[in-house]
Amino acid sequence: MTSILILNGANLNMLGTRQPEIYGSATLDDIKSLCIAKAEEMGIGISFQQSNSEGALIDEVHMAKNHQNGIIVNAGAYTHTSIALMDALISVDLPVIELHLSNIHAREEFRHKSYIANAAIGIICGFGAYGYELAIDAMTRHLGIKR
Amino acid sequence: MTSILILNGANLNMLGTRQPEIYGSATLDDIKSLCIAKAEEMGIGISFQQSNSEGALIDEVHMAKNHQNGIIVNAGAYTHTSIALMDALISVDLPVIELHLSNIHAREEFRHKSYIANAAIGIICGFGAYGYELAIDAMTRHLGIKR
Amino acid sequence: MTSILILNGANLNMLGTRQPEIYGSATLDDIKSLCIAKAEEMGIGISFQQSNSEGALIDEVHMAKNHQNGIIVNAGAYTHTSIALMDALISVDLPVIELHLSNIHAREEFRHKSYIANAAIGIICGFGAYGYELAIDAMTRHLGIKR
Amino acid sequence: MTSILILNGANLNMLGTRQPEIYGSATLDDIKSLCIAKAEEMGIGISFQQSNSEGALIDEVHMAKNHQNGIIVNAGAYTHTSIALMDALISVDLPVIELHLSNIHAREEFRHKSYIANAAIGIICGFGAYGYELAIDAMTRHLGIKR
Amino acid sequence: MTSILILNGANLNMLGTRQPEIYGSATLDDIKSLCIAKAEEMGIGISFQQSNSEGALIDEVHMAKNHQNGIIVNAGAYTHTSIALMDALISVDLPVIELHLSNIHAREEFRHKSYIANAAIGIICGFGAYGYELAIDAMTRHLGIKR
Amino acid sequence: MTSILILNGANLNMLGTRQPEIYGSATLDDIKSLCIAKAEEMGIGISFQQSNSEGALIDEVHMAKNHQNGIIVNAGAYTHTSIALMDALISVDLPVIELHLSNIHAREEFRHKSYIANAAIGIICGFGAYGYELAIDAMTRHLGIKR
Amino acid sequence: MTSILILNGANLNMLGTRQPEIYGSATLDDIKSLCIAKAEEMGIGISFQQSNSEGALIDEVHMAKNHQNGIIVNAGAYTHTSIALMDALISVDLPVIELHLSNIHAREEFRHKSYIANAAIGIICGFGAYGYELAIDAMTRHLGIKR
Amino acid sequence: MTSILILNGANLNMLGTRQPEIYGSATLDDIKSLCIAKAEEMGIGISFQQSNSEGALIDEVHMAKNHQNGIIVNAGAYTHTSIALMDALISVDLPVIELHLSNIHAREEFRHKSYIANAAIGIICGFGAYGYELAIDAMTRHLGIKR
Amino acid sequence: MTSILILNGANLNMLGTRQPEIYGSATLDDIKSLCIAKAEEMGIGISFQQSNSEGALIDEVHMAKNHQNGIIVNAGAYTHTSIALMDALISVDLPVIELHLSNIHAREEFRHKSYIANAAIGIICGFGAYGYELAIDAMTRHLGIKR
Amino acid sequence: MTSILILNGANLNMLGTRQPEIYGSATLDDIKSLCIAKAEEMGIGISFQQSNSEGALIDEVHMAKNHQNGIIVNAGAYTHTSIALMDALISVDLPVIELHLSNIHAREEFRHKSYIANAAIGIICGFGAYGYELAIDAMTRHLGIKR
Amino acid sequence: MTSILILNGANLNMLGTRQPEIYGSATLDDIKSLCIAKAEEMGIGISFQQSNSEGALIDEVHMAKNHQNGIIVNAGAYTHTSIALMDALISVDLPVIELHLSNIHAREEFRHKSYIANAAIGIICGFGAYGYELAIDAMTRHLGIKR
Amino acid sequence: MTSILILNGANLNMLGTRQPEIYGSATLDDIKSLCIAKAEEMGIGISFQQSNSEGALIDEVHMAKNHQNGIIVNAGAYTHTSIALMDALISVDLPVIELHLSNIHAREEFRHKSYIANAAIGIICGFGAYGYELAIDAMTRHLGIKR
Repeated sequence: MTSILILNGANLNMLGTRQPEIYGSATLDDIKSLCIAKAEEMGIGISFQQSNSEGALIDEVHMAKNHQNGIIVNAGAYTHTSIALMDALISVDLPVIELHLSNIHAREEFRHKSYIANAAIGIICGFGAYGYELAIDAMTRHLGIKR
Repeated sequence: MTSILILNGANLNMLGTRQPEIYGSATLDDIKSLCIAKAEEMGIGISFQQSNSEGALIDEVHMAKNHQNGIIVNAGAYTHTSIALMDALISVDLPVIELHLSNIHAREEFRHKSYIANAAIGIICGFGAYGYELAIDAMTRHLGIKR
Repeated sequence: MTSILILNGANLNMLGTRQPEIYGSATLDDIKSLCIAKAEEMGIGISFQQSNSEGALIDEVHMAKNHQNGIIVNAGAYTHTSIALMDALISVDLPVIELHLSNIHAREEFRHKSYIANAAIGIICGFGAYGYELAIDAMTRHLGIKR
Repeated sequence: MTSILILNGANLNMLGTRQPEIYGSATLDDIKSLCIAKAEEMGIGISFQQSNSEGALIDEVHMAKNHQNGIIVNAGAYTHTSIALMDALISVDLPVIELHLSNIHAREEFRHKSYIANAAIGIICGFGAYGYELAIDAMTRHLGIKR
Repeated sequence: MTSILILNGANLNMLGTRQPEIYGSATLDDIKSLCIAKAEEMGIGISFQQSNSEGALIDEVHMAKNHQNGIIVNAGAYTHTSIALMDALISVDLPVIELHLSNIHAREEFRHKSYIANAAIGIICGFGAYGYELAIDAMTRHLGIKR
Repeated sequence: MTSILILNGANLNMLGTRQPEIYGSATLDDIKSLCIAKAEEMGIGISFQQSNSEGALIDEVHMAKNHQNGIIVNAGAYTHTSIALMDALISVDLPVIELHLSNIHAREEFRHKSYIANAAIGIICGFGAYGYELAIDAMTRHLGIKR
Repeated sequence: MTSILILNGANLNMLGTRQPEIYGSATLDDIKSLCIAKAEEMGIGISFQQSNSEGALIDEVHMAKNHQNGIIVNAGAYTHTSIALMDALISVDLPVIELHLSNIHAREEFRHKSYIANAAIGIICGFGAYGYELAIDAMTRHLGIKR
Repeated sequence: MTSILILNGANLNMLGTRQPEIYGSATLDDIKSLCIAKAEEMGIGISFQQSNSEGALIDEVHMAKNHQNGIIVNAGAYTHTSIALMDALISVDLPVIELHLSNIHAREEFRHKSYIANAAIGIICGFGAYGYELAIDAMTRHLGIKR
Repeated sequence: MTSILILNGANLNMLGTRQPEIYGSATLDDIKSLCIAKAEEMGIGISFQQSNSEGALIDEVHMAKNHQNGIIVNAGAYTHTSIALMDALISVDLPVIELHLSNIHAREEFRHKSYIANAAIGIICGFGAYGYELAIDAMTRHLGIKR
Repeated sequence: MTSILILNGANLNMLGTRQPEIYGSATLDDIKSLCIAKAEEMGIGISFQQSNSEGALIDEVHMAKNHQNGIIVNAGAYTHTSIALMDALISVDLPVIELHLSNIHAREEFRHKSYIANAAIGIICGFGAYGYELAIDAMTRHLGIKR
Repeated sequence: MTSILILNGANLNMLGTRQPEIYGSATLDDIKSLCIAKAEEMGIGISFQQSNSEGALIDEVHMAKNHQNGIIVNAGAYTHTSIALMDALISVDLPVIELHLSNIHAREEFRHKSYIANAAIGIICGFGAYGYELAIDAMTRHLGIKR
Repeated sequence: MTSILILNGANLNMLGTRQPEIYGSATLDDIKSLCIAKAEEMGIGISFQQSNSEGALIDEVHMAKNHQNGIIVNAGAYTHTSIALMDALISVDLPVIELHLSNIHAREEFRHKSYIANAAIGIICGFGAYGYELAIDAMTRHLGIKR
């Protein structure tokens, strides 16, 4: 069965209580449930992971190489600083979709730069938890599953 | 009935023949048809416009103020240069979604800057014509129509 | 009779409803009335124009060459991006006064740059609609009409 | 009686002989006379001061706090370098108008930056000595005295 | 018959009276005559157009796609600011020659940047009206007409 | 009982032998002892942690949310590079004091930038091990324990 | 007896009424009283000075050379602009502590640069009036008075 | 016996399949074998480590302090972003050689910056797996073992 | 007889074999022949020189002062780095035309800067060997030979 | 009698004890004596002044306008920050020589920028106290006294 | 027989006496002897050249085209400034190894930029004279001589 | 006998006819005569050289090592671009004085940067031919010949 890795980076475990005016009130578990429901609807499997460690995120990406068909990545602040994570995403040669809960391009200047973008086919940002559903839509479409 | 403006900027009338390796082979008419179908499915109306003129795009935005419920804008290259279009989008006080066919953040440096982003609730880029469907999804969700 | 062009650029047709906390509650028609009254008081004529199109603004400037004695220009966001409008203003060899409703130098960094300034004898900004009256004062003085 | 401080910074005591092609041939005393006449016409009082010392200018601003209703400041070159004077102007919580004899935005690059602008409601520049009259007009209007 | 579009941008309609020390005393009509004569000599046709509107220039470029064999473009100030016009020129897949009357690289810093250059096979600047003849020469040569 | 997290980042486990001319000769254990003594004197508890891993530091910050009343953080080199740690500190909504053994603003240019500062109420740097005592003083004062 | 100069720069005489949300409600006299009490407790003397003049501050620093054992300096906005004051502090070869009421590194970009830091052993900022007490603590410790 | 740490950073575990046109087709195990053979030839021991975690790499460096005589480090993308790893390498006071498989200075601009270089006696890049042999050569020479 | 110096800089002796996809397949001797033929047609003489040495190129320029009527210069990479050659060209007070085989403004960023441009009346680039003929045309025209 | 102002800026009163390895061991009085002796030898008078206040230095420059024939200015750190002092020097229309004891262009980057240079005919730096004698030499020569 | 050019640029003839703490005490003749011995060991020939002239270095590179199999280049300071030498190295289409005696990336900022790197397969720096032996090793390996 | 090298760089052989409003009307031979006369007066010998070649200038500097006691260098435009010449001057370990005829710090921005300054004890600029005499004065003084 087609399966995708949904990878969440730094501080995303704090969702729900972390600046809800920016990130929304859904917890990461809420989002995981949304993703599982959406994936079922699409007929695909997902692996939903989170880590605050750049190295652990890279490890997850590497492990996806032979077990997943695509990666949806919300790298949190590592988006702006991690060339290593970008390199990891490029190294596994899978389609990557970059995701953000908030519209990073309307926030502080240092959040406008994305290294992850260089490894991604597309970007979705600013739609809160619903962005995960959009990203699953886009990935299944990209993988040729959804018409 | 809820209605949204789908506004297309410079050179989008050339789709289909313009660098298809970047922008895909769908013409703007193909995309319009996709949007109409998607909008019908969502139970909303759309106004689908294109212009190569910054001023005409601003005029379209102004006209949307009292007739539309939201704006999906693919401003083409004006994304990177038009503070005036950004100001227009802010002036009408409607939800705005920024859209791009290609992943502008993985292209030339001068395409990384978006003035439109300052006026947008969210951004979708890199998914080709399918991005329009995602944007309509996101807008109807934002407007509270879709669950 | 001495006559001056009062030229208004992008989004100024939206005055009154556009972010009144920044731009004030006067509409462009209110401002036109203020200008007509002030011009009458000064014994001069005015041509009051607005366009959202950079090209149309340039055309207006060109037309002023043989019919007007000076130009007061509130170019809106084109102030910051339009070398072409700056060139137009220089090309007609008339006295130019740059005008802004808000104090652009106390706003976002990208509003601090003015190409128009290179073509202007002076600048008035931050005084809202009243700035138009000050500019007419300054222009009539510059033209030697007001003692 | 309503009173405003008109504060002149570095080198303005040299007016009349200092590069008259830029700053005009009026002396600071000439300008003072113009201001007194204009203020009388407006029915307000003025305190007209000049100093070449950044510290003395700050002292003048502080003293205005409880004795003046507004400040018109032509800070000369301190405009571009003095964060301290900007802070002083902000600290006294009075309306401030920034004034320059020449159009600083059409001169050397280092004269385009104004710290004073962050403390000002508006800016008038490029109209020579007449700019002082415009600034008094604008201030009295701002203070609600003039119509 | 082979035909080329000669496209003139912002403010070029003002030639002859606009800063003749920089742009020369030939009017745009004079240049059109020169171009017609040169084209006749070369055995090709030309379409000679001017507009002050970025959007209209883009429209002209698009229209050239199926009717012209090459484009000579003097975009005026849009050279330095219009990514949209650059994209238009790339989109039509015709040989483009960039032209300027003055030597833009010996003028203000902001005139050194050319977006148009990214779409051009070559550049000719600084030779005044005669540059148009050189450009027609170069284009006919490029098209294989002139041996 | 009031308790604060004292969090030490990269390379601070090497204190005592690491460039003592910059960082002093006290080991991290010495500093821990100082902190415990100081905390006892203040009548508060402390949790004293060190890690070389950005992710582990973020985890520590998250864990502090419901167990500590404030955070004193000497992030070492992560100060200059970790937006993720800054976001973590903001996410827990506790008072944060930024601490450095050396005066980072008198060292290499790349040590002048602090992301941590955006999350901190105050900064203490340059006082070596004694800075920890000052920071505990300041934190207890901020928490209203020390009058 | 050991004595230290506590030097206050531009606008610090306005404390109490100046933007209390940033600088607190304590007046400079309140702070002076705090410092005198703290100094007595430490068994040292202080000289507490304030000036709005860069030159006067430099003079104070020079005078400290043979009469004081250390300098605590809150230079206000001169922190960011005065190379001359930095040079003065270096020239007297006394230990210097840089102090700020607010956390300058979490404010406007232009307040992040400190020339004073190059002359200081350490920096304390963001703790309001209490920062003076911390600085006296740190200085007495540095001078070897406090164990 | 003399021993050196050969430390490999982010994504180097993916060698062999990761963009072989840039990084070559040797796996990290192949390289380890090469290093062991070379070390034996030189009469020294090696410890060959890899991690994707910045923190784990720092830990490895710290552990080398009392057990190794030198460090050869291919930090991968951490080369360009990790001040913390640079600080770790400086803190252990061992000779360090910086190594890269590809010629980073002929790649993207962001790969030209090396923090590691500040801690290294020398740099070898662009020679693929063979670079490890060169680095062992250089290190044994530096340690005075080889002739 | 009117004569012009055609001066060729670094690496132009390698033409024909040097990256022909950029510089074309004509050798410098081929170009010299083209130039001689063109010059004869125009009724002027030429001196055709090449050197890889910045100093020798400057010497050639100096020698032209009293023996040539104009200079066509293709400085190769010295275009971007040699202020000295620019100064030489200005010092001899002859009309200068800057020439490049390739369109330098569509290549690497560092090839966009031209010091030579400050000394030139005009620039021709991107037309390969044929550009020399265009430049001779333009120079003879400028010298008033070709009407 | 011809007379020149020798003006010394911030911290120059500290000469002799201030970082003698940079500024030499001569006191300002020693330098004054050197200058008086040199001036006598040249047959001119001097006025030798020092102030730590930017404003006082500007006042001195203004006073020189009608009483001195030239100005030698060692502005100390004001060299790098004072546009106001530069403007003052320009305003008095006297020949100005810029002087520094140390070679400011071989020191910190922020000492490379000189505003004073824009007002000066020439610059002498790096020769310590002897530089004053060279400057008097150069000024007398410039004034046509020393042939 | 396989032969390589070893090309030494500016100031390398001064080795031995030139800042030996940076460049070592070996003279260029010593290095030449090392290279000859190493080349003999490898069974290849070398041409060992030095020049202080950018043009002469370019000439040497050109001459290598048909007589050498590879180039080892220590361009000295031309590394950082010579686009012309970079172009020369690219033009001859031979493998190039960039070499430096010192670790240029740990020295002044202006030594971090290498144009030569764009033409090189790899870089070796910081190993003093021994770096030449490493480079010969690497080149023979690259040429397939040393397996 | 004490002897100094007076070294002149690019374009200085053109003095007298080269932009005399900037560089004066004295030829290089005139300056040589001035220098010989001044040197005789000082009781020292000089070697007066000029070259337009960076390499030749470096050779001259190297040759000075064992035959001269100091170097006065007017490097012309190489001042701003030649790291190699700077390195040469440092390598010979002789006192160096940097000289310019014009005040380079009041000219174009690119003339403000001097690499030579890093190798110089002092700088003299803006005094035309007379600057050479001042430099000989300063050098003899530095060498301890002139009391």
